[in-house]
Amino acid sequence: MPPSIVDRLEHPIVQAPMGGGPSTPALAAAVAEAGGLGFLAAGYKAPDAVRSDIAELRRLSGKPFGINMFGRPGPAGDPAELARYAAELHEDAARYGVEPGEPRHDDDYYDEKLTLIVEERVPLVSFTFDCPTPAEVERLHDAGAEVWVTVTTPGEARTATAASADTLVVQGVEAGGHRGSLDGDRPGDLGLLVLLQLVREVSGLPLVATGGIATGRGVAAVLAAGASAAQLGTAFMLAPEAGTSPAHRKALKDDGRTALTRSFTGRTARGIENRFMRAHDETAPRGYPDVHHITAPLRAAARDSGDADGFHLWAGQAYALTREIPAGDLVQRLAAESRAVLG
Amino acid sequence: MPPSIVDRLEHPIVQAPMGGGPSTPALAAAVAEAGGLGFLAAGYKAPDAVRSDIAELRRLSGKPFGINMFGRPGPAGDPAELARYAAELHEDAARYGVEPGEPRHDDDYYDEKLTLIVEERVPLVSFTFDCPTPAEVERLHDAGAEVWVTVTTPGEARTATAASADTLVVQGVEAGGHRGSLDGDRPGDLGLLVLLQLVREVSGLPLVATGGIATGRGVAAVLAAGASAAQLGTAFMLAPEAGTSPAHRKALKDDGRTALTRSFTGRTARGIENRFMRAHDETAPRGYPDVHHITAPLRAAARDSGDADGFHLWAGQAYALTREIPAGDLVQRLAAESRAVLG
Repeated sequence: MPPSIVDRLEHPIVQAPMGGGPSTPALAAAVAEAGGLGFLAAGYKAPDAVRSDIAELRRLSGKPFGINMFGRPGPAGDPAELARYAAELHEDAARYGVEPGEPRHDDDYYDEKLTLIVEERVPLVSFTFDCPTPAEVERLHDAGAEVWVTVTTPGEARTATAASADTLVVQGVEAGGHRGSLDGDRPGDLGLLVLLQLVREVSGLPLVATGGIATGRGVAAVLAAGASAAQLGTAFMLAPEAGTSPAHRKALKDDGRTALTRSFTGRTARGIENRFMRAHDETAPRGYPDVHHITAPLRAAARDSGDADGFHLWAGQAYALTREIPAGDLVQRLAAESRAVLG
Repeated sequence: MPPSIVDRLEHPIVQAPMGGGPSTPALAAAVAEAGGLGFLAAGYKAPDAVRSDIAELRRLSGKPFGINMFGRPGPAGDPAELARYAAELHEDAARYGVEPGEPRHDDDYYDEKLTLIVEERVPLVSFTFDCPTPAEVERLHDAGAEVWVTVTTPGEARTATAASADTLVVQGVEAGGHRGSLDGDRPGDLGLLVLLQLVREVSGLPLVATGGIATGRGVAAVLAAGASAAQLGTAFMLAPEAGTSPAHRKALKDDGRTALTRSFTGRTARGIENRFMRAHDETAPRGYPDVHHITAPLRAAARDSGDADGFHLWAGQAYALTREIPAGDLVQRLAAESRAVLG
């Protein structure tokens, strides 16, 4: 194997893939051109859209990049529970003149996207929600792709290491968006620093740390803890290159607090507390992406109408430190601050 | 003001105060003699017992040390809720042939202990659960004592800074034992690394980081994040100098996971999940130390009979990394590993 991409970066800064809008080819390109590693988010996207993202990113930058895939989904939700939840959401949906969607237990074009990644010779693919099989990892390796797997517990780190992953994305409970756990029903609740220390005991793979990193000191801290790089998502959400919606941008600048909830998609994720989360957190059933499809029309309508209380405001615990600056400037600032700390 | 104690340490390692048994004068002395900072835990102890701990520690070591005080308690619990909980615990109590205790909303000899600290010229006092008043801080300063305040949110950091605290103990959600939050009803849920980054924005005071630090790399990480020292509790619980009970020691060596619960004391605390926690977590009322007094006879009986399923197994999220080595050796090992990382 050649040295891994993370070891060849000018700066140990990775832009986290952020599905559902914020991740754009322009964001990934800006991060890559500044010396970090940019990511596209393939989750929720049809293969054609992913292919066109790849083409656009390659027009903007010749640097290596990553694509994040959602792994195969876990068990489907209980049909009666899903129907009850859809009924519960009718009143919310009526605010926007829409109807809850039909629950659907699809696999987000898993096989098609794997094939696309192989065909496009994507240099790096990261997985969340599931670990690829050894045969899938081998197929990706044969196509020249590095394989990263997101883990939230030492047990998941063991699983990913045994599956021949090249690098572990170690996601602390501080992280915004979905918990990237292999087991959707039991996502790890470990703080990032704890997880880095525990995972180091069970795996010798390079670690990319993510969850609540927002400053150069935060980057320096995870490097000191043994990570090869820091992956930041929320920190890039106010960058002009990000596709973050206006209502989400406003919420990131307001006072508030985050919480974990299954209410938006059926899988646990962290976002800024809002009316929808408070109203439905305790009643939301399990079942991903079933619940995602039920709530999707409401969330799209709320976002389009600028109602930040009606959709998922994914954000990590440190979101108050997010600055509205170009992504490349942020990469260089974080790298310089981190170097100043670590010498 | 002279330079603070934390800046004069040979090693940036603080032994966390651990009430209810683990903290002993021998543990504090071993840490201090190895170049760290030792702490006594005054919580739950009558003033005479605290005075005798101080005398014993001074016999064992001439180094500066700290004492941790529980701040004034918050609101009392609801009497009907407390009575209901005591009734719920009768069956558990019968296992050991004891009765639940009477709820009592005392202040743990707050004023007496403050006076004792002044009289004994204790060099350093840290507070959890409440922030001392400016007048109390002044009285302690006049007696030559440094004042540290435990915080779990940026808002609490502002409060403690405004009260003229000398140093903030920044406690991440990973920490074992009680959340040291100023507001018992809304303890902060922020990971340590997030909290360090956020607190740095609102306070220029020296920060002591605590919560899930178990290795030299963990120490290095919080120093890189801007802390002046790392405070470790669970990491010292298997040291021969600690007063940790045999059943608690065994639980720390077994596989398991931690969770936050109010079931043991009425205030949120982190411990290893066991039968008592699972049975009573959802039904336990608020009210500290009211609930502490209700459960105390059961917990003492369970501990004495070696039943680790019946009492509070305080532990931080990284407890699996706790090693059974003398406290002084641990201080030196952590310091050497941390120095190797930070150069």
